[in-house]
Amino acid sequence: MMLDEVIEQIQPLDQSAMQAARERQNMLTKPRGSLGRLEELSIQLAGITGRTIPTIQDKVIITMAGDHGVAAEGVSAFPQEVTPQMVLNFLRGGAAINVLARHVGARVVVVDMGAASEIQDASGKLVRRRAGSGTANMAKGPAMTREQATESIRSGIEIALAEIARGADILGTGDMGIGNTTPSAAIACVLMNQIPEKIAGRGTGIDDDGLKRKISAIARALDVNKPNAKDGLDVLAKVGGFEIGGLVGVMIGAASKRKPVMADGFISTAAAMIAVTLAPQCKDYLIAAHRSKENGHHWMLEWLGLKPLLDLDLRLGEGTGAALGISLAEAACKILAGMATFDEAGVSDKE
Amino acid sequence: MMLDEVIEQIQPLDQSAMQAARERQNMLTKPRGSLGRLEELSIQLAGITGRTIPTIQDKVIITMAGDHGVAAEGVSAFPQEVTPQMVLNFLRGGAAINVLARHVGARVVVVDMGAASEIQDASGKLVRRRAGSGTANMAKGPAMTREQATESIRSGIEIALAEIARGADILGTGDMGIGNTTPSAAIACVLMNQIPEKIAGRGTGIDDDGLKRKISAIARALDVNKPNAKDGLDVLAKVGGFEIGGLVGVMIGAASKRKPVMADGFISTAAAMIAVTLAPQCKDYLIAAHRSKENGHHWMLEWLGLKPLLDLDLRLGEGTGAALGISLAEAACKILAGMATFDEAGVSDKE
Repeated sequence: MMLDEVIEQIQPLDQSAMQAARERQNMLTKPRGSLGRLEELSIQLAGITGRTIPTIQDKVIITMAGDHGVAAEGVSAFPQEVTPQMVLNFLRGGAAINVLARHVGARVVVVDMGAASEIQDASGKLVRRRAGSGTANMAKGPAMTREQATESIRSGIEIALAEIARGADILGTGDMGIGNTTPSAAIACVLMNQIPEKIAGRGTGIDDDGLKRKISAIARALDVNKPNAKDGLDVLAKVGGFEIGGLVGVMIGAASKRKPVMADGFISTAAAMIAVTLAPQCKDYLIAAHRSKENGHHWMLEWLGLKPLLDLDLRLGEGTGAALGISLAEAACKILAGMATFDEAGVSDKE
Repeated sequence: MMLDEVIEQIQPLDQSAMQAARERQNMLTKPRGSLGRLEELSIQLAGITGRTIPTIQDKVIITMAGDHGVAAEGVSAFPQEVTPQMVLNFLRGGAAINVLARHVGARVVVVDMGAASEIQDASGKLVRRRAGSGTANMAKGPAMTREQATESIRSGIEIALAEIARGADILGTGDMGIGNTTPSAAIACVLMNQIPEKIAGRGTGIDDDGLKRKISAIARALDVNKPNAKDGLDVLAKVGGFEIGGLVGVMIGAASKRKPVMADGFISTAAAMIAVTLAPQCKDYLIAAHRSKENGHHWMLEWLGLKPLLDLDLRLGEGTGAALGISLAEAACKILAGMATFDEAGVSDKE
């Protein structure tokens, strides 16, 4: 599979389905526009799927894990061993993403995109698409090779296509990787031409010294690697991560099959920025689930032109915000499908 | 039942349950505080219910309808006949509140608190607690008598207690009543000592002339009636509505039984302002579901000291925002109940 071929398959939104959905919204028994962003979302979903009344039944959250050489710079409040520990927690169902996915009726697909070492999974449920054993330390050189970057995106596409073949109506993105707000902030700095101080935040909760180390590591990574902002693969390779590449692939793969992607927080948004750099038409298929409490996320969403659905001060990742967002997308579709029209209900329309 | 007796039953939040919930949140496998407002909500719910791990299973939305004499001033974009038409739509399950309540697994209880005329309900599901046949035109005199105000609150309390006796773990509030953003704005003006221009909005979608009529009607209502801002019953009687009084009662009744109330948008917030005027300790039991697109709602929430969970530009009422908020409250409880602790999952805590 060639990446360019998949990207070429991404079509514009279906304008006639959107128009029909808009007209239907205006016939339903409520003042026009009174369901605000739920109405807008239903119209976007009509455009994505090409159906006037889209349905969201099979919901999947793809949570991708990877490790980061830059963790050696002391950029995280947690030790790197937490990446595999949390992956096992996902597989046993004890993490926040499991609880929230169950709440909204979504499946969770857990993928090892490149933890530091092999994860001993007794459940047999872990999807293994390792592009390496953690990235190299981007503060000293490229995080990965261009080939690894391509491979991670390709894996993400394949996983998305496989889940869509199984029936997925919407894909949520999630991440796990100690240190991964650092490469995500670096990606945003490159693509937005911003300084690390403006984008980097406290991630899982580092102190002031840790934040200084993080900003310094990003600054050195940009200086050493000089990523080319016009080349998404170059940015991913030099200052990205394996799970970030995987999420880029999920977004591109979903868009190529006219499926919506509910993007989680900071890391997923960095992936989205690379996805739209590679494939600008991908953007229309993305929905921003929430505004993260992490510094800079607000600007990243603005750069993408995405308005988040939720603003709950979440900063966990894993796909937790995406799970809640998926429930809103499902609600938006149900409004189109389940509400009576003025005629059907015998309700008088606006005077 | 005496109103004062119910109000006296409202207890402060259970601080020890809140502390235990806070400690449990900090043991769960996630960075401390990383679930943001979901964590805060879970702690509030622990304080409300007195349980370290509260559960929300039986979810009820109480949608109360009433008509408003002030509709004669041309303050709404829809004719008054829409009130009973929409009540019948609720009872048949075709309205937005029905769709969203089904989505979140909540029951809807529909109450006629005082539509202009009797509603012919074939389903037998309509709860009838009519305090009158629509209010009088508040622009010309009091909307109702003090006795009717008391009666509407008492009805709301009784309905809340009945639903709690049936097992309700959380009550959402909703409203239907052509013209009811006008009395709601009037209530806010009185209690916040504000001018109508600052609070009144376009409701279901009136034009510029309609907005002028609305502001004028509110100004005349305040001038003619001179409601006493220190006396919640006086404010409700002079510039309120029957469904607003009912919602005041639902809030007070729920608080008296240590049950959370998910308050919907503009009308429910006006009811909440009267509820806390009558019973300040009621406030801790209230959760603001969303920030309405309606003018002034933001200030009303600020006056109450409530921060809305959602900001989706909703302006429909019926309890639609409350339904979505209830799903978040349920998610917050499930986080406390369903996540593994660091010890249980063998995950290393922060360094």
